[in-house]
Amino acid sequence: MRISIIGSGNVATHLAAALKNAGHQIIQIYSRNFQNAALLAYHVKAEAIDDLNKIDPSVELFIISVKDDAIADLAEALSAHQKLIVHTSGATLLSVVSSHTQNAGVFYPLQTFSKTKEVDFSTVPLCIEGATENITSVLEQLAKTISKSVYYVSSDQRKILHLAAVFACNFPNYLYEISRELLADHNLNFDLLRPLILETAEKVQDQIPAQVQTGPAIRNDEITMDSHLQLLTGQEYLQQLYVLLSQGIIKMDKAKHAAK
Amino acid sequence: MRISIIGSGNVATHLAAALKNAGHQIIQIYSRNFQNAALLAYHVKAEAIDDLNKIDPSVELFIISVKDDAIADLAEALSAHQKLIVHTSGATLLSVVSSHTQNAGVFYPLQTFSKTKEVDFSTVPLCIEGATENITSVLEQLAKTISKSVYYVSSDQRKILHLAAVFACNFPNYLYEISRELLADHNLNFDLLRPLILETAEKVQDQIPAQVQTGPAIRNDEITMDSHLQLLTGQEYLQQLYVLLSQGIIKMDKAKHAAK
Repeated sequence: MRISIIGSGNVATHLAAALKNAGHQIIQIYSRNFQNAALLAYHVKAEAIDDLNKIDPSVELFIISVKDDAIADLAEALSAHQKLIVHTSGATLLSVVSSHTQNAGVFYPLQTFSKTKEVDFSTVPLCIEGATENITSVLEQLAKTISKSVYYVSSDQRKILHLAAVFACNFPNYLYEISRELLADHNLNFDLLRPLILETAEKVQDQIPAQVQTGPAIRNDEITMDSHLQLLTGQEYLQQLYVLLSQGIIKMDKAKHAAK
Repeated sequence: MRISIIGSGNVATHLAAALKNAGHQIIQIYSRNFQNAALLAYHVKAEAIDDLNKIDPSVELFIISVKDDAIADLAEALSAHQKLIVHTSGATLLSVVSSHTQNAGVFYPLQTFSKTKEVDFSTVPLCIEGATENITSVLEQLAKTISKSVYYVSSDQRKILHLAAVFACNFPNYLYEISRELLADHNLNFDLLRPLILETAEKVQDQIPAQVQTGPAIRNDEITMDSHLQLLTGQEYLQQLYVLLSQGIIKMDKAKHAAK
């Protein structure tokens, strides 16, 4: 397909590269910041623009990959070209685009991207939604050229998915940071915990998290939990977090036993 | 070394196998449950026993790998044989063994083990501590036969390490379960999130978590956070958890900027 990318952030960067590698033509990269557009455009052999008046309308698809609150205005501006427009946001309804054009869809790669780390796009779940069955089918075909995991996900389901991703990714990463800081405060290297972090994530690749839960809370080991809270004396936020998470784990266990 | 293992749980199982593979002789496996002892003993070509009176004293090392609250009694019982005794617990002081014999140490593998999943022991950080410098040196040599990552960690440091591991492993696993349940409630497959979970853990293998934090909280994106809380209407516990973790992330960001 002939595709232009609106945006030059992490998602735009990885998506443009994956589409280019799959043989699609990236025509233009638009960004308000010309330098950002130029950098990405250079990598995918596209034209960089920072002015919506310079949009080349001879494409089949515009992919809007920008901050959520900027999607609506860009969709409106691009709708004049009467081409298929999709956004890549987990937290944004299809209607943010489809209220401007029926030629609308969502193309949401469910992964955390950083510019400095390579991602194997073939394993990234791609969640697609079209305003019509025909668009859904077009997006499904496109998605399958870059990923082995393509799912139809409605706007309502995508909201839940985005929320669940916060629990599965953003919050665990923050807990990693807490653990790193606890170690640093006691001259211990974060390398001590890195293999544990990786193993914990690998375990649930083919198992249910509840069934591989370990630690003092799932054993309801009050002595250990009390000693942990004592170690956190003076760090009220961490104590509160420790108690709240442990309470959840203890209840999860009970619910599991009750269900048996 | 000639080693007997006291216990037959996850840590005992993986440790016995790793030691056997490294060329050490596993003499006996003790468990109160004879069948458990027999199963592990079969795998490492050792004798299974369920009676402490049948302990073979002709070993160099007893490794006590049992529930934390059972360590002290076993250390006391074994101390009569006047051989080196170590425990494998992250949450237990050296003194729980060394109060019974000066021939005492700690041999703590910092990893989460399940019997059903293979672990590459060479990447597991091994935290050692000896009651004397000589014992520390013996344990260091032993540890290096099965792992590339051997650290001297004092009892005080190990307490912090164990606490940090709860934040780095047990709590994230629980958050994975929350995300799985959110998806299941809306007919979405947990496979959608599995690559994200793995990538999040892989990212911090060579980066600092704070520097790769993503999601609405780090952007202080109140609109998205509010919509997430609305999706959690009626699930007060999850709302409370969402708010508490998001507050921490928002503050982390501010602290980072303030430090610049």
